[in-house]
Amino acid sequence: MTLPADIVLASASPRRRELLERIGIRFTVVPSHAPEEELAGETPEQHVLRLSRDKALAVAGQHNIAGRWFIGSDTIVLRDDTILGKPESPAEAAAMLRSLSGREHRVLSGFAVHDRQTGATLADVVETRVRFKELTATEIAGYIATGEPMDKAGAYAIQGIGVFMVLGIEGSYTNVVGLPLCEVVDVLERLGAVRLFEQPL
Amino acid sequence: MTLPADIVLASASPRRRELLERIGIRFTVVPSHAPEEELAGETPEQHVLRLSRDKALAVAGQHNIAGRWFIGSDTIVLRDDTILGKPESPAEAAAMLRSLSGREHRVLSGFAVHDRQTGATLADVVETRVRFKELTATEIAGYIATGEPMDKAGAYAIQGIGVFMVLGIEGSYTNVVGLPLCEVVDVLERLGAVRLFEQPL
Repeated sequence: MTLPADIVLASASPRRRELLERIGIRFTVVPSHAPEEELAGETPEQHVLRLSRDKALAVAGQHNIAGRWFIGSDTIVLRDDTILGKPESPAEAAAMLRSLSGREHRVLSGFAVHDRQTGATLADVVETRVRFKELTATEIAGYIATGEPMDKAGAYAIQGIGVFMVLGIEGSYTNVVGLPLCEVVDVLERLGAVRLFEQPL
Repeated sequence: MTLPADIVLASASPRRRELLERIGIRFTVVPSHAPEEELAGETPEQHVLRLSRDKALAVAGQHNIAGRWFIGSDTIVLRDDTILGKPESPAEAAAMLRSLSGREHRVLSGFAVHDRQTGATLADVVETRVRFKELTATEIAGYIATGEPMDKAGAYAIQGIGVFMVLGIEGSYTNVVGLPLCEVVDVLERLGAVRLFEQPL
């Protein structure tokens, strides 16, 4: 049986927490404060993998925190080869949404699971393509007025009001929410951290 | 301004209701009791279109019910060319999930919007491909024990615990939930029923 404190999610994201809780995984949350800057010469894949590892290891390195398996994750939105982070102003959110209107972009989520007992770290990155409808100025202004875009990479949340823009995706849906659930569960099972439905939900 | 009673959702599905509410569409719910049998010689596309129209028109035909625009919808899961409906027993749910394990299937949602004032009905059908991971017997039994599969076409809910099975999709996510939201909003706008974000959410 996995104890609640055995798994630690090193992320403040309520979306990641909700996904893991929904399928009965028990864990504690300890947000990481690892820095998130981009490094020169790094590919987007390398970027999210590095941040995911950094977040998992930053929390695992705090020995006053109980736990064995530490999950770090990072999600970015890519328009062509430009990383769109969290907008810093409503005007920047509007510019991001205008630049995503009527076209496809990519969402990359990296994740890393560090086993403090064995020292092993397994990490991967998953890509999903997302297609937006053509957005009107009224839709962009109205969506920004809801406040939802301001703390989201790429200025939207697919699991929120932002769903009105998403014509279709290709790949993992949970990856766009912020955590590629099938892939994370597979790694947690390979590391012996969970077995889905071993107990009734 | 659209009055709350101008749009009527002819469906008892809480998933459809939640999607429309999330993006600020105001409506009333009047479930239709139109029969749902399959007709010989009908394609899956014809089947969901016919049921969507039947549901919208059945409720629009009840003149004690206020409203102008009536939305009907029907969702089916297709494994190759076999329609998977709602399972009638846990054993049937297990058989459906085993048959979907480790492979791709299709989800078709039809929808129809009937304008009682002009007599116009616009309808369409949207297809999404869904890929499941390989399911273990423990996962299938554990998922059925949650009770979630029993009232769902194909014995799963992508927006619920069933998300643990879904490796990826190709197409509209909301279509798998039960209502292809972008397409439905587009039709509601063409019929003059809504304009997204015309009022703050």
